[in-house]
Amino acid sequence: MPSYTGPVEDFQFLFDDFLDLDAWPDLPSLQGVDSDIFGAVLSEAARFCESVLQPLNAPGDETGCQLAGDRVTTPSGFREAYRTYTENGWPGLTTSPEFGGQGMPHFMGIALSEMITAANTSWGMYPALAHGAWELIHQHGSEQQKQTWLPKMVSGEWTGTMNLTEPHCGTDLGLVRTRAERSDDGRYRISGSKIWISAGEHDLADNIVHLVLARTPDAPEGTKGLSLFIVPKFLLDENGELGERNGVRCAGLDHKMGIRASATCEMVYEQAVGDLIGEEGKGLNLMFTMMNGARLGTGIQGLGLASVAYQNAVTFARERLQGRSLDGAKHPDKPADPIIVHPDVRRMLMTSKAFIEGARALAVYTALQLDIEHHHPDAERREQAGHWVALMTPIIKAYFTDMGFEVTSLAMQVHGGAGYIVDTGVEQYLRDARISMIYEGTNGIQALDLVGRKLVAANGDTVRSFFDRCQTLLEECADEPEMTEFSQALAEAVERLKRTTAAVYAAMASNPLEAGAASTGYLRLFALTAMAWAWTGQVQAVRRARSAGRVSHSFAQAKIETARYFMQRMLPESLGLVDCILAGGSTLMALDADDFR
Amino acid sequence: MPSYTGPVEDFQFLFDDFLDLDAWPDLPSLQGVDSDIFGAVLSEAARFCESVLQPLNAPGDETGCQLAGDRVTTPSGFREAYRTYTENGWPGLTTSPEFGGQGMPHFMGIALSEMITAANTSWGMYPALAHGAWELIHQHGSEQQKQTWLPKMVSGEWTGTMNLTEPHCGTDLGLVRTRAERSDDGRYRISGSKIWISAGEHDLADNIVHLVLARTPDAPEGTKGLSLFIVPKFLLDENGELGERNGVRCAGLDHKMGIRASATCEMVYEQAVGDLIGEEGKGLNLMFTMMNGARLGTGIQGLGLASVAYQNAVTFARERLQGRSLDGAKHPDKPADPIIVHPDVRRMLMTSKAFIEGARALAVYTALQLDIEHHHPDAERREQAGHWVALMTPIIKAYFTDMGFEVTSLAMQVHGGAGYIVDTGVEQYLRDARISMIYEGTNGIQALDLVGRKLVAANGDTVRSFFDRCQTLLEECADEPEMTEFSQALAEAVERLKRTTAAVYAAMASNPLEAGAASTGYLRLFALTAMAWAWTGQVQAVRRARSAGRVSHSFAQAKIETARYFMQRMLPESLGLVDCILAGGSTLMALDADDFR
Repeated sequence: MPSYTGPVEDFQFLFDDFLDLDAWPDLPSLQGVDSDIFGAVLSEAARFCESVLQPLNAPGDETGCQLAGDRVTTPSGFREAYRTYTENGWPGLTTSPEFGGQGMPHFMGIALSEMITAANTSWGMYPALAHGAWELIHQHGSEQQKQTWLPKMVSGEWTGTMNLTEPHCGTDLGLVRTRAERSDDGRYRISGSKIWISAGEHDLADNIVHLVLARTPDAPEGTKGLSLFIVPKFLLDENGELGERNGVRCAGLDHKMGIRASATCEMVYEQAVGDLIGEEGKGLNLMFTMMNGARLGTGIQGLGLASVAYQNAVTFARERLQGRSLDGAKHPDKPADPIIVHPDVRRMLMTSKAFIEGARALAVYTALQLDIEHHHPDAERREQAGHWVALMTPIIKAYFTDMGFEVTSLAMQVHGGAGYIVDTGVEQYLRDARISMIYEGTNGIQALDLVGRKLVAANGDTVRSFFDRCQTLLEECADEPEMTEFSQALAEAVERLKRTTAAVYAAMASNPLEAGAASTGYLRLFALTAMAWAWTGQVQAVRRARSAGRVSHSFAQAKIETARYFMQRMLPESLGLVDCILAGGSTLMALDADDFR
Repeated sequence: MPSYTGPVEDFQFLFDDFLDLDAWPDLPSLQGVDSDIFGAVLSEAARFCESVLQPLNAPGDETGCQLAGDRVTTPSGFREAYRTYTENGWPGLTTSPEFGGQGMPHFMGIALSEMITAANTSWGMYPALAHGAWELIHQHGSEQQKQTWLPKMVSGEWTGTMNLTEPHCGTDLGLVRTRAERSDDGRYRISGSKIWISAGEHDLADNIVHLVLARTPDAPEGTKGLSLFIVPKFLLDENGELGERNGVRCAGLDHKMGIRASATCEMVYEQAVGDLIGEEGKGLNLMFTMMNGARLGTGIQGLGLASVAYQNAVTFARERLQGRSLDGAKHPDKPADPIIVHPDVRRMLMTSKAFIEGARALAVYTALQLDIEHHHPDAERREQAGHWVALMTPIIKAYFTDMGFEVTSLAMQVHGGAGYIVDTGVEQYLRDARISMIYEGTNGIQALDLVGRKLVAANGDTVRSFFDRCQTLLEECADEPEMTEFSQALAEAVERLKRTTAAVYAAMASNPLEAGAASTGYLRLFALTAMAWAWTGQVQAVRRARSAGRVSHSFAQAKIETARYFMQRMLPESLGLVDCILAGGSTLMALDADDFR
């Protein structure tokens, strides 16, 4: 059975040395916190994930959720774990103190999310959806709606969901048919069917606050006719306490390849009472607020699953004795050497480690930008940070989840035949990881978002927010000869990306199909370049930290060697991507639909 | 639920036009067969797979195999399907007429295997293992052993297995502990435990002929002490009829991620009676005969699963309406366009198609070489063909199964959320495909075989067998201007591979660890180059076939466009591989085992 240890040391290094928090004295979420507090919270979060959530992971996969009538039962232990989670105040970790939250910085929320998902991805879906719903109401709800819903969502007594998909529409939400009719009391009656609703029904919380995309009777067709509604499982009475059961119920649970302990529900709305959030016809815009957070969170699922799968692959590779090192036995006293002596096993482990630690750096940095975007007093700082977040959201969602799947598959490969056996437990990681490439907008949609929207957004300022930071880092490295091997690789990668960006931009201008032809390769190319930036920055940071005695020599050395591995053996993937992108889309569109045989 | 159609037209094209069978008038397996016979057999095989095996695939996955006592029950319908299979003579399709086989060429066996695995991978494991055991006894058994066992294996009345792995040894067979003691009657008594034995016990056949690797009491340690034994489930009486139950039984069934209807057995041998094949101490060499065939067969599993997953992705992409084409609605009369209009969906379909058809060409060509190697009257021809087979075996095993997994994952991605739901049926393909990267020697082991053995084999003649054929093809293309775009891409790829080969060769000479550092990337690079060869050859062949009126214009055009897609958008992956390989292994070996955190 797998085990899990939260990567506290790595997070602490990133917070203390990579993020350069001293540069942000005016950021509200950094007031009153320091390295010691981060350390204490990280350790506490790790302990909860390791000792409470992780042991429930494999049993939860085996049991799954059960539907009886319209009630959903989560696997044994899930309720108790959720109670512990709420009692310890985790749901409010990063939410605003105004409604009872602790107002910690978002990068701390990222750390918590990564560890939760590594320990138990299915369980983590319930609080994740709740947090998304909280975020949406917090940003777009009326004052009264906020007062009504947020405190109990922050405390974890109530959870939330996001109801978008219908049987005939997933990506294309313009086709939504669920109807919302306004009644005389100003409230709406919602009717329709939604599918694939995560945490749509369960037994963890007293109420579930559904955010539902629906169409008002006289609304125009397409996405402009969509409005967003708060539709609770239980209506509230005049005191804000639970009242009548609302006309929404779970009509089915999906049997899925993975995340089996996450209830994926078919929801039926029959004249359910709902309240409009924001204005009619603006539903999709508001929903995107929630989806952007959810997309980052989904990316973190890829990272978390990669991390736990990698840890178990390392343990196996250290213990499994098989064959001898190619340059002679390393442990002649044993019947065979541990397989970690084999370069090809190390290739799998190093690829995993280089992804995980690079991605983690990129994630916490992006989370800091999220805090700056939302809370910094200076408008220009907010705007700059916003560009970075907008740019990195599709990249983190798609690249992290693609790699999450790749790394869980590598972990299985390190395990050999044992990896394919259910009892070993690593195959669950692969199955759980696969969904993250699909939901919250398929990775193809993320790539289109990057090329079709982000490339052209804000007159190019969005993309420049990345190139400018690369430039800054390269200038900082110019005086440090020991940074040259990294900064040079980064500089080349940036040049390559710039050239390719210009080419894609030009191709799109003459033929819109070229955006779709380039998109997936271009996102991967951008992600590799962003990882090169994150690794260069980490080497810079770890050298600083080592000089100051904040990290051990072996930690620093491993960081630097892993950076070197990334630059030498993973970054070259970009070369082929550039050629593939520059080839353009003519060969994609050449066949008639009937010729695909 | 998925559907399946055997790719009869593509096979027929390959046999008629790509293989150039007229060049082999002396090959026994080509006597008395022609294009019409191929067509008839292909159609019959396709019909059996489509109508008998495919409907059992999803139900078999759900039920799995059941163990009660030491008896294994296969899923409902498996027995009847197996009976139909044997009644129609399929087990003997390519086996020698001497023992009741039909002696058809191996490429016909490849076609049958691909279609069986596409229709029902789990079911296909039983005859596949039987065929492997047949092959081993046929090549290495004594005349008496052949007369005893082969006829009933050809008829399908008896099946076979390969018993290698033990709990503490998979890759490293030198650690095998199962013991074989010679008794006075000249027979042996086998005792020990084997795990992960496919088709080790089941209810399809009357007897199971286990081929067991074991160690004689006074044998040296390591692989040189291994011998191979025939250990049947039922001993035979003096008339060759089923007699006493032998001391071998199934003690457990593994619960696996996929191929759940394939019985993966823990086998216990307690003083089981066995007969030595070949000499004592030569067991592993003999087993390799079987493993090479099994490795090609495993590669074909990747191809078959890719093929069926792709077919279903195409159907879904043609039917699912979602969004509008980036250059304007293609079906304004419908609520949305079918997703096959989107370039990124086409990227997934074209990548799948280009892999499948390129791999199929490479597979049938290699199968023809197998016939030449085994049966051609001319020794030099046999030797040449043997080099090709030796070289391509690890490439086909590893690249086809890596891509089988990638393509089944792409098929899921095309399906979006529906792909993750069990009822849709595509997630089974992904789960079933994953094992093929592990068993019959992990893909890492295949890569080491390529770099460590095949690169240096026969003074380089093994590798030259590929480069020489590329050279021949390039010379043939020199006079055809319409071939230039393909031949030029192939020529560049060959140059790149030659340069990298030389560099790897040099690096290995100074440090054996460099073989392992280069291996996986090098195998992929070689595979892409081999695919470029196969695609160039297919374009040449389809142009010929079109001129002769043997294929439709649309078939030829699709073939040529797919070749173009491969060259422009898949072959460039080589560029990054070369850089990664040339970076060498220092970054792989830099960390201490303890620094993997």
